[in-house]
Amino acid sequence: MNFTPSTEMQEFLRQLNKYIDKEVIPREQELKGLPWREVAPKLAPMRQENKDRGWWLPQIEKEHGGMGLSVVEHGLVCAEIGRTPFGMYLLNAQAPDAGNMEILIQHGTEAQKQRFLEPLLAGETRSSFSMTEPEHAGSNPVYMSTKAVKDGDEWVINGHKWFSSAADGAAFLIVMAVTDTSPDANLHSRASMILVPSDTDGVKLERNISVMGHAGDGYGGHAEIYYDDVRVPVSNTLGGVGHGFTIAQDRLGPGRIHHCMRWMGICERCFDIMCKHVASRELAPGRTLGSRQFVQGWIAESRAEINAARLMVLDAAWKIDTLGKAQARTEISLIKFFCANVLNNVIDRALQSLGAAGMTDDFPISGYYRSERAARIYDGADEVHKISAAKQILKQYL
Amino acid sequence: MNFTPSTEMQEFLRQLNKYIDKEVIPREQELKGLPWREVAPKLAPMRQENKDRGWWLPQIEKEHGGMGLSVVEHGLVCAEIGRTPFGMYLLNAQAPDAGNMEILIQHGTEAQKQRFLEPLLAGETRSSFSMTEPEHAGSNPVYMSTKAVKDGDEWVINGHKWFSSAADGAAFLIVMAVTDTSPDANLHSRASMILVPSDTDGVKLERNISVMGHAGDGYGGHAEIYYDDVRVPVSNTLGGVGHGFTIAQDRLGPGRIHHCMRWMGICERCFDIMCKHVASRELAPGRTLGSRQFVQGWIAESRAEINAARLMVLDAAWKIDTLGKAQARTEISLIKFFCANVLNNVIDRALQSLGAAGMTDDFPISGYYRSERAARIYDGADEVHKISAAKQILKQYL
Amino acid sequence: MNFTPSTEMQEFLRQLNKYIDKEVIPREQELKGLPWREVAPKLAPMRQENKDRGWWLPQIEKEHGGMGLSVVEHGLVCAEIGRTPFGMYLLNAQAPDAGNMEILIQHGTEAQKQRFLEPLLAGETRSSFSMTEPEHAGSNPVYMSTKAVKDGDEWVINGHKWFSSAADGAAFLIVMAVTDTSPDANLHSRASMILVPSDTDGVKLERNISVMGHAGDGYGGHAEIYYDDVRVPVSNTLGGVGHGFTIAQDRLGPGRIHHCMRWMGICERCFDIMCKHVASRELAPGRTLGSRQFVQGWIAESRAEINAARLMVLDAAWKIDTLGKAQARTEISLIKFFCANVLNNVIDRALQSLGAAGMTDDFPISGYYRSERAARIYDGADEVHKISAAKQILKQYL
Amino acid sequence: MNFTPSTEMQEFLRQLNKYIDKEVIPREQELKGLPWREVAPKLAPMRQENKDRGWWLPQIEKEHGGMGLSVVEHGLVCAEIGRTPFGMYLLNAQAPDAGNMEILIQHGTEAQKQRFLEPLLAGETRSSFSMTEPEHAGSNPVYMSTKAVKDGDEWVINGHKWFSSAADGAAFLIVMAVTDTSPDANLHSRASMILVPSDTDGVKLERNISVMGHAGDGYGGHAEIYYDDVRVPVSNTLGGVGHGFTIAQDRLGPGRIHHCMRWMGICERCFDIMCKHVASRELAPGRTLGSRQFVQGWIAESRAEINAARLMVLDAAWKIDTLGKAQARTEISLIKFFCANVLNNVIDRALQSLGAAGMTDDFPISGYYRSERAARIYDGADEVHKISAAKQILKQYL
Repeated sequence: MNFTPSTEMQEFLRQLNKYIDKEVIPREQELKGLPWREVAPKLAPMRQENKDRGWWLPQIEKEHGGMGLSVVEHGLVCAEIGRTPFGMYLLNAQAPDAGNMEILIQHGTEAQKQRFLEPLLAGETRSSFSMTEPEHAGSNPVYMSTKAVKDGDEWVINGHKWFSSAADGAAFLIVMAVTDTSPDANLHSRASMILVPSDTDGVKLERNISVMGHAGDGYGGHAEIYYDDVRVPVSNTLGGVGHGFTIAQDRLGPGRIHHCMRWMGICERCFDIMCKHVASRELAPGRTLGSRQFVQGWIAESRAEINAARLMVLDAAWKIDTLGKAQARTEISLIKFFCANVLNNVIDRALQSLGAAGMTDDFPISGYYRSERAARIYDGADEVHKISAAKQILKQYL
Repeated sequence: MNFTPSTEMQEFLRQLNKYIDKEVIPREQELKGLPWREVAPKLAPMRQENKDRGWWLPQIEKEHGGMGLSVVEHGLVCAEIGRTPFGMYLLNAQAPDAGNMEILIQHGTEAQKQRFLEPLLAGETRSSFSMTEPEHAGSNPVYMSTKAVKDGDEWVINGHKWFSSAADGAAFLIVMAVTDTSPDANLHSRASMILVPSDTDGVKLERNISVMGHAGDGYGGHAEIYYDDVRVPVSNTLGGVGHGFTIAQDRLGPGRIHHCMRWMGICERCFDIMCKHVASRELAPGRTLGSRQFVQGWIAESRAEINAARLMVLDAAWKIDTLGKAQARTEISLIKFFCANVLNNVIDRALQSLGAAGMTDDFPISGYYRSERAARIYDGADEVHKISAAKQILKQYL
Repeated sequence: MNFTPSTEMQEFLRQLNKYIDKEVIPREQELKGLPWREVAPKLAPMRQENKDRGWWLPQIEKEHGGMGLSVVEHGLVCAEIGRTPFGMYLLNAQAPDAGNMEILIQHGTEAQKQRFLEPLLAGETRSSFSMTEPEHAGSNPVYMSTKAVKDGDEWVINGHKWFSSAADGAAFLIVMAVTDTSPDANLHSRASMILVPSDTDGVKLERNISVMGHAGDGYGGHAEIYYDDVRVPVSNTLGGVGHGFTIAQDRLGPGRIHHCMRWMGICERCFDIMCKHVASRELAPGRTLGSRQFVQGWIAESRAEINAARLMVLDAAWKIDTLGKAQARTEISLIKFFCANVLNNVIDRALQSLGAAGMTDDFPISGYYRSERAARIYDGADEVHKISAAKQILKQYL
Repeated sequence: MNFTPSTEMQEFLRQLNKYIDKEVIPREQELKGLPWREVAPKLAPMRQENKDRGWWLPQIEKEHGGMGLSVVEHGLVCAEIGRTPFGMYLLNAQAPDAGNMEILIQHGTEAQKQRFLEPLLAGETRSSFSMTEPEHAGSNPVYMSTKAVKDGDEWVINGHKWFSSAADGAAFLIVMAVTDTSPDANLHSRASMILVPSDTDGVKLERNISVMGHAGDGYGGHAEIYYDDVRVPVSNTLGGVGHGFTIAQDRLGPGRIHHCMRWMGICERCFDIMCKHVASRELAPGRTLGSRQFVQGWIAESRAEINAARLMVLDAAWKIDTLGKAQARTEISLIKFFCANVLNNVIDRALQSLGAAGMTDDFPISGYYRSERAARIYDGADEVHKISAAKQILKQYL
C-alpha cells in the first residue's frame, strides 16, 4: 500500500487546491440557484482555460487527450475539486459523462468514437445514461421493461425510463434495453446498451424530475423519458448485443472511486466551514461554540471518519491500479456505503453546528444535505453493497 | 397516567382523520411548490368551512372562541392534522400564531387583545415572532443586541433579526429587545417583548431567507429584518418591561407538545407511505421489498420509536394538564430532542425504502426531509435540551 | 390508555421500593460472587418473610395463592424488584419458574398440578425449561432433534439440550420434544411439552455452561443436558400431544412484560448510580463530571430512553389486560427489542461514566453489562422480533 | 503514505500468522479460566522458543536485544499476535512491560537499566505502572494525592493507587507521585516517576480488583495498592524530578499504536469466528444464517470498519516513523477512540451472530466482550481523546 503521489502530482494537487479556493469557491454564491442555461455559459471560459493548460479529463488516457492519471491519482484530484459543486465539471470529469467516456473508449467502434466520444472529450457535448425504470426497483436492474426489437438493421426501442441523469440538453443517451426477449433468456445477458441521439424521433423527455425541491433542469437534472418506437441503426449497439450488464458493471468500479473521493471533497468543505464557525462563534462573551464538548465530539468524530474513509478509498484505488478491478470488488462495495454514510454524518454534524444558519442557503451545507442524501441510494444503495460485500466475503468460508 | 380521550374526543379525532385523508391530502400535489400568495386563497374556503363547524383554534380556551382542549387532547389533534403540511393552518393552530395567541391571551392588555389578538383568532391576520439574531447563537437568547430605548411614551427600537418566522405578510411582529441597557442589568430580566405593527416606519424586511432551497415567501418563510429607529407606543409592551424571557419561556412549553405531536403526524404519514410502497414493490417476481430483512428492520424500528415518542409526549402533556408546566419541565426537554430525532430517523428510513423515488418531490418525504431537519435546531437544539434536562435531573443528586 | 395504579397498589409499590432500598440492596455485596448453594440459604428467610406478608407470586391468580395482579400491575412490581438481581426471586416471581407456573396452571391436569405446581408455588422447589438445542438455531425452534417416542404408556425421550435455565437443582424440567416423527408432520404441531422429574434415569446434566465468565451453578445457570432413553409416563404430557409450540408461545407474551419491566428496574438502578457518581466526582477542584456535556448527554438520553421504554411496556401490558394477548402481539415484539437495546445503552453509558470503576465489580454495573447482554438474544433475538413485528404490520397493507 | 512492509517483514508476518493459528489458538481452551500461576509455567517454554529464534521484543531497538521494528512494522506484528489473548506475552511485548521498557531505555540511568530493565527485557521479571488513584478521575491525572517527600537521599512515598496493572507478581512498580508539594507548584511539572521494588517495606497490595467478574490475579490483574511510608533512594527517580507527566505522555504515543493494532487482531479473530459460524449454521434446511440480510449487514459493516481502523492506525504509525510522535498527536487521539469503538462494535456483532452460543465461554468472543470494554476507558477515555483531538484541530482556525 503506497498512496504517496509523485512530486509532480503533489504540485498539481497544490495548484488545484489553490485554484478551487481562490477562483471557484468565491463564485459559488453568484451561481447558486441559477438555472443551468445561465450557469453553463459562465463556466465555459473557466473550462476552456483549464483545457488549455491541460487540466482536463484527469481520468482519461493521454492518447485520448486526458491526463492519464492512475486511479489513486484521479481520486486525489476528485477530493480537491469535489470541494465545490462545479469542480468536476470544470475539468470535464463530471458524471455521467466520465463513465460514458470510459465505456465508449473501451467498447466503442471507431465510428461510435468519432461521432459520440470525440465531442464529449472536447467538452462540446454532454451525454446521459438511461437505465433505471420507474416500474422496477433500481437495486436489481436485471428486471427491466424497455425493449429493443430488431427490424432490419434498426433497433426499435420502446420503454419508460427515469433518473436518466443530465438528459436535458444531452447530445445522446446510452439506453439499456432488453434485446433478447425470449422467455428463457438469461437474465444477465439479455440486455444491451444502445447509443441514441437525443433528437431521434420518439425520444420524449417527459419531465425533469423535481428532486429535493430542485426543478432539475440541464446538467444537474434527472429526466423521465419515454421511448416510443425509437429507431436507431443496429450499429449503435455499444460493445456487443447482450453485453449491457457486463459493461454497466465495468462502468461502476472506478466511477465509485470518483464519487467517493468527490464526497471526501465535500466532507472537507463542510468540516472546514464547521471548524471556522465554531472557532469564532461566541455563546457568551469569551466562550466559543468550539469550547463545548458536544461540538468537540462532532469535530473529532468527523475528522476520524473522513480520515478513515479517505484511506479506504485510496486503498481500493491502489488495489484497482495494481491488481485490477476484479480484485477490488469487495473493497469497492465497502467504500461505497461506508463513504456515503460518512458523508451524510459529516454534513449533518456541520449543519447542526451552525444551528439555524446551517439550514439556510447562505452556506453550501444545506445544499449538500439535500443533494448528497442520494449518495446512499444511487450506484447501488447501502443495502445492495452490504449484501454484495458480505456474499463475496462468505464465499471464502464455504 | 391516563391518556384515553373522551368518547366525544375520539369521535372528533376519527372525523379529523377522515377529513385529512379525504379532503386535504388529495390536494397536496396541486398546492406543492406554489408561492404562498397562490396557496393562501386556495386554503381560505377550507379554513372558513372548519371555522364554521367549530374545528378552529383547538388550543385556545372556549371563551376566546377556541375548542378549549386540554393539552393531551390538543396533542392528539396535532398528531392527526400534522399528517399534512397544511393541517395546522387549516384549523388556525399554526406556529408562530398559536404561541403568539397564547401569550397575548395571558399577558395582553385589553387594548392589545382587541387590536392584535382578535383578528388573529378570527384567522384574518397572521403574526410573527422576532427574537433570533444572526450575530448571536440562538442557543442562549439572553445575549441580544436589539435595543429598545424609551423616548417619551415611545420605544425606539434598533436591531437586526433573522428567522422571524412568517414575517412576510404578517400584520404584526412580537419583537424581543433589550430594554434595560445598563451595563449591570440582570441578563435574564433586561429584555421585553414589544408589539410592532409590520407597517411601522423603519421595519425593513431585508429578505426572506432561502432555507433548504426554499425561497421562503409568505407563511412558511423566515425573514431577516432590520429595525431602524422603529417607534411604537410604550403601551405596546407585552406583559411588563423586563418580562421578555419569562414570557418566551411560557410560550415554549405547550408549544413543544404541539410541535412534537405534529411531528408524530409526519412520522405516521411517512411510515404509511413506506409500508404501502414496500408491501407492493417487487424486487423480483413474487418477492417484495417488504420481504427483505433490512426493510423489515426499518419498519419495526420506526414503529417502536414512533410509539415510544408518542407515549412520551402524551405523558408530558398529561403532566402539564394535571401538575402544571413547571412540573413537566424535564419531560418537555426530553421529548423535544427525543421526538426530533425519531422524526429525522423515520423520515430517513422512509426515504431510503423508496430509493430514488424517495429523493423526488413525487412523494412528500423529500419535502419533510428538508424542512424537518430544523426540528433538531429550533425551539432549542438537541444539545440545549439535553443539557437542560441533565441539569434538572442532577439537582436531585446534590 | 390508563396506567395509573390504584391507591392500594401505589402504597404497595412504595413499600416495595423502600424494602429493596433498605433491606435487599445493602446485602448485595455480601452475596456477590458466592455459589448458589451459599446464596439460597441466605435468601430463604427473606423469602419466607415475604410469603408470610403476602408479597408472593405477584403474577399468579389469588386462587393459586398469588397476588392476582393485572399485567400492568405486575409490570410495575417487576420494575421495583428488578433493581436488584435478587428481587424477582425474593417474591417467587423469577424466570423460568414464573412461566412454568403459568403454563401448568393453564394446561396442567390436576395430578400434574399437585405434583409439580404446588411445591413450585410454595417456593419449595425450582424448575427448568428445556427447549433450545445446540445443533439448531434458537431463532426457529420448530427445527429440533430431541424426540419422544411412545412405548406403551411411556414416552422414551432422547435428545441433547442446552441453555436449560436453572436446571442445576431443579425438581423437574419441562422438555420440548418432537412427538410426531413422521416425515410429513406439520412443523408447528409435531412437538409436545413433557414434564420430566430431574432424577429420572437418563437425565444427564452434562455441565453448567460457563456464560460470560460465570460458572453457572444453581438458579442462575444454563445447563447442557443429555436425555438418554429417559422414560416418563405419557400422562406427563403438558396440555396435549402436539401442542408444544402453542403453549411455548403462550408462555412468552406476559413473560416478556415481566422481563422488560425487570430491565427497567436495572435501568433505573444504573441510572441512579451514574447520577450519584457524576454529581459528586470532581475532575478538578469545583468542576464535577456532571458538569461536562458528554455526561449530560448520557443522562438526558438515558432518561428519555428509559421513560420511553417504560411507557411502551405499560402500554403493551394495558393492551394485554384490556384486549388480550393476541391483540398485543406486535407491541410485545416491539418492546422486546426496544427495551433490550435501551437496557444495553443505559448500562453502557453508566459504565462509561464511572470510568475504570465501572469495569470493577465494586459496582453492580459491570455485572449487568455481562449478564444482560443476553437480553438482546433470549426469548427471541432483536432480529427475530423485528421481522415478526414488520410482518404483522405489513399484513395491513396487503 | 507507504504501508507496504518489506519482503522479509511479509515473510515474518506470514510465519507469525501460521504460528498463532497452529500453535497458540489451539491451546486457548486449555488455558482459559486458569489462574495466572498455572498459566505462566505453561507459556514459559513457548516464550523461550520465541526468544531463541529471535521473535522477541519486536518493539525494542536491536541494541537492547529487540527486533528493532519500525512503528508500522510493530503494528503489523501486533495485529497478528493480537488474535489471541496470549500473543503479546509470548513475544515479551505485553503491556505494561512494553511501555515500561521504553521509558527505562529512554530515561533510565545505567544503574536503573541494569537493575530494572535487563531482567525485563530477558523476560525474567514483570513490572507494573502505578499511576491512577481511586480518589481522582483518571481523565485528568494531574490531580493526584500520592506524595513523595525527600528525606535525605530517600523518597518517602505515601499514597493510594488502583488499576496498577499487573502488580501482582511484578518485580517493581513505576510509581507516579507528587514531588513538589508547594501550593503553587505547576500542575504539570510537580510529579515524578519513581522506581519501587515490589518488596519494599510499606508497599501493600490491598487486593487484586475484581474486574468484569475476573478475580484479577497475576499478569492480567489490576491491583489496589497502598504506599505507606515507602522508602526508596532518590536515585530511583526515573528521568528527572518533575518530569513525571512528560514521560507518561511519551509512554502513550507508540503504546496506543500497539493497543490499536492488538485490537485489530481481536477484530479479525471475532470476524473470522462470525463468518465461519454464519456460513455453516442453518436456520432451516438449506438456508444458512449467512444468507440473512441482518447478518450480511454485520459482516459488511464490520469488514468496512476494521479496514478503516487498520488503515488509520498504519497511517498514524507511518507518521510517527517519518515525522515523529509530536506530528502525529491528533492522529493518535483519533485512532484511540475510533479503534476502541470499532473493536466494541465488531465484538458485539460477532456475539449477536452466534446467539446464545456467543454468550458462552465456549468461544473467545464473550471474554473479549468483557475485557475489551475497557478499551474505551483506559489510556484516555473516548471523551478525553475527542476533546484533545478537537482542540488540536481548532488551533488551526484561531
